[in-house]
Amino acid sequence: MQRYFIAAEQFSDSEIRLIGDDAHHAARVMRTKPGDKFIVSDGESRTALVAVLEASATLVTAEIVEMLGNDSEPKWAITLAQSLPKGDKMELVIQKGTEIGAYAFVPFQSERMVVQYDAKKEAKRIERWSKIAKEAAEQAHRNRVPAIEPLHSWRELIKSMSNYDLVLFCYEREGHLAHGRGVRTAINEWTAQAGEVSSPKVLLIIGSEGGFTDREADEAEAAGAVLVGLGRRILRTETAGIVGLTCLLYESGEMGGA
Amino acid sequence: MQRYFIAAEQFSDSEIRLIGDDAHHAARVMRTKPGDKFIVSDGESRTALVAVLEASATLVTAEIVEMLGNDSEPKWAITLAQSLPKGDKMELVIQKGTEIGAYAFVPFQSERMVVQYDAKKEAKRIERWSKIAKEAAEQAHRNRVPAIEPLHSWRELIKSMSNYDLVLFCYEREGHLAHGRGVRTAINEWTAQAGEVSSPKVLLIIGSEGGFTDREADEAEAAGAVLVGLGRRILRTETAGIVGLTCLLYESGEMGGA
Repeated sequence: MQRYFIAAEQFSDSEIRLIGDDAHHAARVMRTKPGDKFIVSDGESRTALVAVLEASATLVTAEIVEMLGNDSEPKWAITLAQSLPKGDKMELVIQKGTEIGAYAFVPFQSERMVVQYDAKKEAKRIERWSKIAKEAAEQAHRNRVPAIEPLHSWRELIKSMSNYDLVLFCYEREGHLAHGRGVRTAINEWTAQAGEVSSPKVLLIIGSEGGFTDREADEAEAAGAVLVGLGRRILRTETAGIVGLTCLLYESGEMGGA
Repeated sequence: MQRYFIAAEQFSDSEIRLIGDDAHHAARVMRTKPGDKFIVSDGESRTALVAVLEASATLVTAEIVEMLGNDSEPKWAITLAQSLPKGDKMELVIQKGTEIGAYAFVPFQSERMVVQYDAKKEAKRIERWSKIAKEAAEQAHRNRVPAIEPLHSWRELIKSMSNYDLVLFCYEREGHLAHGRGVRTAINEWTAQAGEVSSPKVLLIIGSEGGFTDREADEAEAAGAVLVGLGRRILRTETAGIVGLTCLLYESGEMGGA
């Protein structure tokens, strides 16, 4: 069934309104008519099955048939911090990460980042990334659109680590066959120490094409991150985020891992 | 370190030869010179560290310094069968699937496939997909290039299922919130029944954008497949293969899951 994410103010007690692109999509692309049903969500707490009252290309009103529970959001809130990759790879990370179940995305700057970051373009890029997250969340039938945070400096990223219950830093020291801990070991060690946390906030940090420097790994570790590896094959930067997120959610009992 | 996959006949007891695109890449792009080292693999059993003797844009000869063990291939040989998706999504599945560790790829036809398959283009597409697999295997430091099998009809796919120790069919009956078994449950049930298989051959079957029909699911189940789900969020077809492969390898002890 079609889903739309709408702002909280488009909800009233008994009705909802679609406006802008969503109204156009419902009226013109889906050719929705009175009585047709779809699902709306405010992206946070409210999700409802609604039936169309009136539809035009600028405004669709619908009455709430039933409030729905939140049954598609993971218990673990995993934020994916990705050092800015080349080209449009960040778009792939956000689209796939949203489908898989990321809670939020933090693009950040690191020493060996290959791209030249253009601050003037930041607002536009974040707007575009947010749109990709919204569309992917609708398609994946999620009740929540992951937030795209503004670009963090390395210092800001390190500082933000204290907001999380667990921070995993994907890293393999160059030329070493001995990798960091695996995800499973890292989670088991953390659970043994922290006890049962019902909805843990986890930060998963992924380097860009150039990887991290030893100094960055040392600083992350000093700030409380656990260094982890994702196995014996070398994953491209955009693959590492998708795979790391999948493994973490699988280990938490999602993705068929229960 | 740079890797090249070469044909078995380019190996002799003490030397190897790069020809064609690989020679051009080594001589012109990497500007390799006598004494420089790189790794070659025949994509199956032999992987060697070599040192360049002579390099030109058409022929690079190098002596074998050391034969290397196979330490990057997964124990589980997982073949990803993907119903032909739209556009260039199959390329993404093959690139990411190769990085993650797929053993082979089987594109196949199913009832609700959205694309019109063009048999005349098949040879060219398989050539292109094989090139993508080779490049991804080199980049991921794999010792083996996954095979791309020719397009299978639904009947051929069903018939091929007897070649595998375990067949997982990703499926969610429409409108049902109760999904198939999770990957973990399916693996545990299979292990309990089959005992320890050291290098199991597994077939993971993924539908295209239109999904599978109930009849296809019934036929797959009748032929021995286990129906599995990948969690509560709806994954795009190209995401399902990447996620399913990651979960299976993680469950087998790869990707940091040991």
